[in-house]
Amino acid sequence: MGSNAFGTIFKITTWGESHGKAIGVVIDGCPAGVRFEESEINAALALRAPGKGPYTSPRAETDRAEILSGVFEGRTTGAPICILIPNKDADSTHYEPIKDHLRPGHAHYTYLEKYGIFDYRGGGRSSARETAARVAAGALAKKFLEHHNIQVLAYIKQMGSVEAVIETHDVEHLRTLTYQSPLFCPDPQATSAMAALIEKAKREGDSLGGMVEFMALSVPAGVGDPVYEKLEAKLAHAMMSLPASKGFEIGSGFRSVLMRGSEHNDRFFKESGEIRTHTNHAGGTLGGISTGMPIIGRVAFKPTSSIMKPQETLTTSGEPTSFNLPVGSRHDPCVAIRAVPVVEAMTALVLVDALLLNRCARL
Amino acid sequence: MGSNAFGTIFKITTWGESHGKAIGVVIDGCPAGVRFEESEINAALALRAPGKGPYTSPRAETDRAEILSGVFEGRTTGAPICILIPNKDADSTHYEPIKDHLRPGHAHYTYLEKYGIFDYRGGGRSSARETAARVAAGALAKKFLEHHNIQVLAYIKQMGSVEAVIETHDVEHLRTLTYQSPLFCPDPQATSAMAALIEKAKREGDSLGGMVEFMALSVPAGVGDPVYEKLEAKLAHAMMSLPASKGFEIGSGFRSVLMRGSEHNDRFFKESGEIRTHTNHAGGTLGGISTGMPIIGRVAFKPTSSIMKPQETLTTSGEPTSFNLPVGSRHDPCVAIRAVPVVEAMTALVLVDALLLNRCARL
Amino acid sequence: MGSNAFGTIFKITTWGESHGKAIGVVIDGCPAGVRFEESEINAALALRAPGKGPYTSPRAETDRAEILSGVFEGRTTGAPICILIPNKDADSTHYEPIKDHLRPGHAHYTYLEKYGIFDYRGGGRSSARETAARVAAGALAKKFLEHHNIQVLAYIKQMGSVEAVIETHDVEHLRTLTYQSPLFCPDPQATSAMAALIEKAKREGDSLGGMVEFMALSVPAGVGDPVYEKLEAKLAHAMMSLPASKGFEIGSGFRSVLMRGSEHNDRFFKESGEIRTHTNHAGGTLGGISTGMPIIGRVAFKPTSSIMKPQETLTTSGEPTSFNLPVGSRHDPCVAIRAVPVVEAMTALVLVDALLLNRCARL
Amino acid sequence: MGSNAFGTIFKITTWGESHGKAIGVVIDGCPAGVRFEESEINAALALRAPGKGPYTSPRAETDRAEILSGVFEGRTTGAPICILIPNKDADSTHYEPIKDHLRPGHAHYTYLEKYGIFDYRGGGRSSARETAARVAAGALAKKFLEHHNIQVLAYIKQMGSVEAVIETHDVEHLRTLTYQSPLFCPDPQATSAMAALIEKAKREGDSLGGMVEFMALSVPAGVGDPVYEKLEAKLAHAMMSLPASKGFEIGSGFRSVLMRGSEHNDRFFKESGEIRTHTNHAGGTLGGISTGMPIIGRVAFKPTSSIMKPQETLTTSGEPTSFNLPVGSRHDPCVAIRAVPVVEAMTALVLVDALLLNRCARL
Repeated sequence: MGSNAFGTIFKITTWGESHGKAIGVVIDGCPAGVRFEESEINAALALRAPGKGPYTSPRAETDRAEILSGVFEGRTTGAPICILIPNKDADSTHYEPIKDHLRPGHAHYTYLEKYGIFDYRGGGRSSARETAARVAAGALAKKFLEHHNIQVLAYIKQMGSVEAVIETHDVEHLRTLTYQSPLFCPDPQATSAMAALIEKAKREGDSLGGMVEFMALSVPAGVGDPVYEKLEAKLAHAMMSLPASKGFEIGSGFRSVLMRGSEHNDRFFKESGEIRTHTNHAGGTLGGISTGMPIIGRVAFKPTSSIMKPQETLTTSGEPTSFNLPVGSRHDPCVAIRAVPVVEAMTALVLVDALLLNRCARL
Repeated sequence: MGSNAFGTIFKITTWGESHGKAIGVVIDGCPAGVRFEESEINAALALRAPGKGPYTSPRAETDRAEILSGVFEGRTTGAPICILIPNKDADSTHYEPIKDHLRPGHAHYTYLEKYGIFDYRGGGRSSARETAARVAAGALAKKFLEHHNIQVLAYIKQMGSVEAVIETHDVEHLRTLTYQSPLFCPDPQATSAMAALIEKAKREGDSLGGMVEFMALSVPAGVGDPVYEKLEAKLAHAMMSLPASKGFEIGSGFRSVLMRGSEHNDRFFKESGEIRTHTNHAGGTLGGISTGMPIIGRVAFKPTSSIMKPQETLTTSGEPTSFNLPVGSRHDPCVAIRAVPVVEAMTALVLVDALLLNRCARL
Repeated sequence: MGSNAFGTIFKITTWGESHGKAIGVVIDGCPAGVRFEESEINAALALRAPGKGPYTSPRAETDRAEILSGVFEGRTTGAPICILIPNKDADSTHYEPIKDHLRPGHAHYTYLEKYGIFDYRGGGRSSARETAARVAAGALAKKFLEHHNIQVLAYIKQMGSVEAVIETHDVEHLRTLTYQSPLFCPDPQATSAMAALIEKAKREGDSLGGMVEFMALSVPAGVGDPVYEKLEAKLAHAMMSLPASKGFEIGSGFRSVLMRGSEHNDRFFKESGEIRTHTNHAGGTLGGISTGMPIIGRVAFKPTSSIMKPQETLTTSGEPTSFNLPVGSRHDPCVAIRAVPVVEAMTALVLVDALLLNRCARL
Repeated sequence: MGSNAFGTIFKITTWGESHGKAIGVVIDGCPAGVRFEESEINAALALRAPGKGPYTSPRAETDRAEILSGVFEGRTTGAPICILIPNKDADSTHYEPIKDHLRPGHAHYTYLEKYGIFDYRGGGRSSARETAARVAAGALAKKFLEHHNIQVLAYIKQMGSVEAVIETHDVEHLRTLTYQSPLFCPDPQATSAMAALIEKAKREGDSLGGMVEFMALSVPAGVGDPVYEKLEAKLAHAMMSLPASKGFEIGSGFRSVLMRGSEHNDRFFKESGEIRTHTNHAGGTLGGISTGMPIIGRVAFKPTSSIMKPQETLTTSGEPTSFNLPVGSRHDPCVAIRAVPVVEAMTALVLVDALLLNRCARL
């Protein structure tokens, strides 16, 4: 299988480079009958659009997606859906001077080692620009989830040492708080503290790491697959395929190392006829299959590798040199912010695939 | 794709239940010409065998694997290799009384919800017994890696609050220290402290969480795939498909949330003609492709869900009841220990697949 | 994907060599709840068993399949089902003398060129013995089809110049006639003529080609997939993966080259509330998707390559030599006969997969 | 896997409807370093362009393909290659009147049964228009084959009862003769006879069936896979996935039913140091793997289902009616002609994939 596809039944294949003519995605395997239109993609793309706030790169791209196939009279037909997103404002001349410099913390070196050729303009295929195609596909996935009354949400849980405190249990309220924050952080106080951190980092030409929390609600029990296709394995695969992600955890995650079984085991009980658990250390899955409790996990993102400080490095021919980001190049001081809608999209994509596969679980 | 297969070119499909006649694996896609024999599988299985130390379950299974196909005159032929591991000592009568109790922290409930039927004997397919098949396949994967002079290793990095200190940089020395420890922990002092923790937990009928660290050395730069098949994404998928795993991280992992780009970016330099980096916060990959530096990461395991204390739960028909582990059932107080050889095997399987896929990277 | 697997959702992986310890199949993706037992596999295997009649090889193998996993209390659990078929009566010593001779019309040469190693004992993996594993998996596929009231059937349509005349339209009557014939030919007169052909060929140490016709009845309209996964494409793939098959056709097949559109187009009409077509030149599919009419097609098999006459050939080192089949080696004068139950099994496997995939066709 | 993808390593996914905005293909898995430009795609598309001769539909589409990604400085980078082909001249208003009529011999009915919705404009996804995307991908596949000095070629072997006689053994001469014929038939006399057949059929508002022969030369021995991925199985899958194809055969194909083993077996001999066979009844493969002899086979195409005569049929609601092709709709009297470049493209795609997979055959 090529390395640009994700999913088993609801399968996406993304294509396009940061500074090429366009990027896009083909969705093969979407059931027929889903109402879907371009405006829904563009609304989703607007969320991740840079320049929306002072804390993301000012690159002025107002993405306008085009559905080229697979939708007829407003509904999916079962045919592959190709979504095209033209690249605007992609002046790549300023990448010329650094095309022979190994960018610290960047895929430039490894792509060259693997392929012997690299589209250095804006990072080419390794650019976060690719994630716009994931968000476009995620918009369709969410339409499918709506029919199953499943909600997915992601937000900034931590940036540097500032951790957000989540006080509400109502997903729509949480969503509102998240979108009200220029940092996608549902905790207003934490948002202010994080904003200060970013300002400081920007002044110093530096960048920050961050953590994104994701959740899926109203997923019925019994969704997901055992052994190698566990829900948490697919979610981990999805999240670790994102640029700059360094870690994934579900439920109690790494904290479970410090716990004991008597504490970690979530006790079953019955609430208004439904089987629930008192706690949710599992994070909504047992043995890779959903329990009916909220699916919740976190993704760690490293600080943006593109910083404004000069860094020692090598040329592609191995000569020592100093790497300086070209004047005019634009980068987010914290990639985790822009990653929020992408993490949400990947959560949706994993769930749609699991729900479809579940149709074949029983005779 | 079925949920019991892993890998793209070097593809394994495992089968078998904990208390069935046998478990096994079919490896489809192994190149011809690899020297391989049953003794190598059994040596690998012996490492994960329970009862090897006082800290794992006393279930006396001395696994004897049988190669049924794909090896001729001591070498693989390119044909699928079926490895069968008979189940011994599998008295399942004592599971009868609890077959209608939802086991806290266990896949019993979710399998029932998904399939409407569950082989409750010893956990059936959800049992850690399945991982023996992964270790068998991993033994072949390691034979392939040997030809590329690549070493893989895993060990206990933390148990409860006790963290191991790794002082050596020599992988073979580290391996020796690891295998000398009944807990697969290369730090003798930490081993003693962890042993004490386990004794205490056992006395109290409880269990412990743990963290396994894995590494791969001498992987050349340029191995792995971009976007959805990043090396870290496949490793995360592999590790999160293990029973009881709750988190995965590579390189700086979750610590990177607290770091800044100027600190996190690994600087390139040249050492005896080789391109290296001064630090390795990346953990050996950039953009999903290997840098040539050691690939290193960690997996978090929750405490064993099977504990000796009574726990409140429900029957499959939803009636409140108390769950008591049947007399005579045997479980590890810390699953992370037995997971060590499995994490090592999964690391090898991911790398073999990436190395084979790389043969198609260039014209 | 490995070359030993077939199917997308209902996926089989076969393994084992003709003269190895055993052969078998792992079925991954079978829905839970299908009643299935070993006796049903053995009944299916008995049909293809050589030595059942005077017209197939006398190799006395009474296959006894064993279900090693995936079935609990008589029903499939959703877990992978491993079926093992031990190899009996497999003396391979008489293959020694010819191991360095390129067998005319045989895969010996091509396997050596590809892999550099060949398990020459009885043809190893290239032997028709592998098809027993397909029949075992097909037995389970048929159990699934029974729940959808779908019947599949195959029989000898032609051998040499003798063509069978099918007079009944009742599938069960056709099945009875087929099984009554030692050649799986539902036309008694043709059976006698074919038997005479075989006797003559055997006397002359030669072999015969044959054609197998297959059909599937009561397949509802709308089953199958468009473009690259057309029902006829998957059937063709399935049949052309059989040893010795040289051609595949559906409906009017190659005869359609001589037809005109006005003649070939099947006219739609309504019969007792059902949409049918007056003719069935399409063979039950349009655009790769079932029409509700019988799915019918044919597979051409070349004459057995193993004949009793000496044949000029080369040694593996390229020296001219004469190839003589070892004394005591046993072969069918017409492979098409033994292929009948295998063609039936492959038809069932293709349909089960298409039926399962169809569950994801609509919202 | 979605039904719109083909290939394992060199994987294509096509998208787009006949009368939508555009059609296209994404190629994922093409090795880096292949020189490739739009002009090469357009040259290939020009061959299949309708209106090139009097014997194909006059629809005036001069396809202009655009490479949107994956090619940098004239070479493939290893990234996915998206090729877009805008749809021109696609007035679909005249399809309105027949949108509720089941088109005889057409996928209209089966798509509706499967999906409950159908893009009736020009056949939507079931249109032969989709094959333009295959030809575009095939153009890249041929660039890869050139590096291995492998040639592929297809031509009209038969139309109605007129069969072409191939007298040359030189592939380039054969190619010249083929392209000189408005019918892609390398036999000038047969071309004239076929042209007469077409004229007659057109006058009568009818259509003709045809047979396309394909060949691949200079494929080294040892290419292809055993068991389920046999070269002939993949070729059959590829060809039977084409619109209107009803049959596939390789080498002696259906004629082998009439042959005897002593006649069919191709004898090995040595010619200028190379192992060859005197005859080539096998058609270039044994056991699914190439022998080094020419790979040759044939595909049968039914007569175009769209004819100018009125045909009895049903409405989508099941009422009897008469189907008349709308005035102004354009169709080829013999689809086999336009299929020639597509069969050639599919042959190339199958071979590229097999060559890449072969890189993993040995240690």
